[in-house]
Amino acid sequence: MAGKVQKKRDDLRAKLIDFAEVRIKSGGIADIRARDLAKEAGCAVGAIYNVFGDMNDLIMAVNARTFKRVGTQVSAAVEAQPPGHPVHTMIAMSHAYLHFARDNTPAWRTLFDLEVSTEGAVPNWYLEELQKLFTLIADPLRRIFPDMPAEDVELMTRGLFSAVHGIVLLGLEKRISAVPADKLEHMITLVFSHLTSTPSEK
Amino acid sequence: MAGKVQKKRDDLRAKLIDFAEVRIKSGGIADIRARDLAKEAGCAVGAIYNVFGDMNDLIMAVNARTFKRVGTQVSAAVEAQPPGHPVHTMIAMSHAYLHFARDNTPAWRTLFDLEVSTEGAVPNWYLEELQKLFTLIADPLRRIFPDMPAEDVELMTRGLFSAVHGIVLLGLEKRISAVPADKLEHMITLVFSHLTSTPSEK
Repeated sequence: MAGKVQKKRDDLRAKLIDFAEVRIKSGGIADIRARDLAKEAGCAVGAIYNVFGDMNDLIMAVNARTFKRVGTQVSAAVEAQPPGHPVHTMIAMSHAYLHFARDNTPAWRTLFDLEVSTEGAVPNWYLEELQKLFTLIADPLRRIFPDMPAEDVELMTRGLFSAVHGIVLLGLEKRISAVPADKLEHMITLVFSHLTSTPSEK
Repeated sequence: MAGKVQKKRDDLRAKLIDFAEVRIKSGGIADIRARDLAKEAGCAVGAIYNVFGDMNDLIMAVNARTFKRVGTQVSAAVEAQPPGHPVHTMIAMSHAYLHFARDNTPAWRTLFDLEVSTEGAVPNWYLEELQKLFTLIADPLRRIFPDMPAEDVELMTRGLFSAVHGIVLLGLEKRISAVPADKLEHMITLVFSHLTSTPSEK
């Protein structure tokens, strides 16, 4: 009996994530309304809150899927590169991130639109998904900077992710950095192709 | 007579920008409501729209002041650096940008929160203010990369601004890149200290 209730609950959960994902893919976070989702899933609004603590939890579940898709695309770019050229690998990964953001803008924006009030509130499975992405960056970075202390590699991994994110964000928003979309790839290449293991003398 | 009307209009304009600036400094774009500003300025709501096309125009006027303050702080950081060390200058500028964003978060966020629908809608004086900031970056960049074509210097200027913006944005939001605030300076230093004029062999 308890198993049956649990199965019903799991089914509703999966269904709600599916519906929310479709909406987030097309319109982003603004398209997520409990009333609409309840209608679509054929349940009461209250039933949603039995399955998810709040709408943020539901959006987080969709974001986890989006992060997985980012990871898959970035991994594929890494694998398509010949080994032994970590700078090229970093550039290819950054381009893959740009292409993902360009082709999946509403879902990608939702990764960053969600209010995350405190670090403690972020679920572990979310941080694990993120960690996988950082590992993809840290690997070539360690090969570019073989003598860099582990702590600095970790910091630079997050720094470079944030840097590429900034280029993609301002670039796609055609905002401050107002650069034609076809120049964004070259912009990323320029920044990365001058990263070298020798600290600059200047 | 016309002069008197114009003066009254100019006074109201200046007063509204002052009031809006106080609100944006404390609470960002969410604190800007026409009704509240009208009350504060002792005018009708309609009078605001006689002076500014819409609330976005008013926020743009405040953003222009904020950009000027960013520029002043970044310029001061450049001037405090000994000449002949363009990489150090770039790092000092980036740190100054981080400090500005950290100490003026609501106003800084408002620079990017405003919807800018098309490039054509951005007023010239706004783009000029932005151009001044880019010039500050392009100068040391040209000294680091003396042989880089002018077009690439321009692209890299915007790329590096976006990169630093990304680091500051994700860093201050304690979001994806979740790095302790006191490590953000070091993160920026790490990224920039490995920028060299020799393209990486890796």
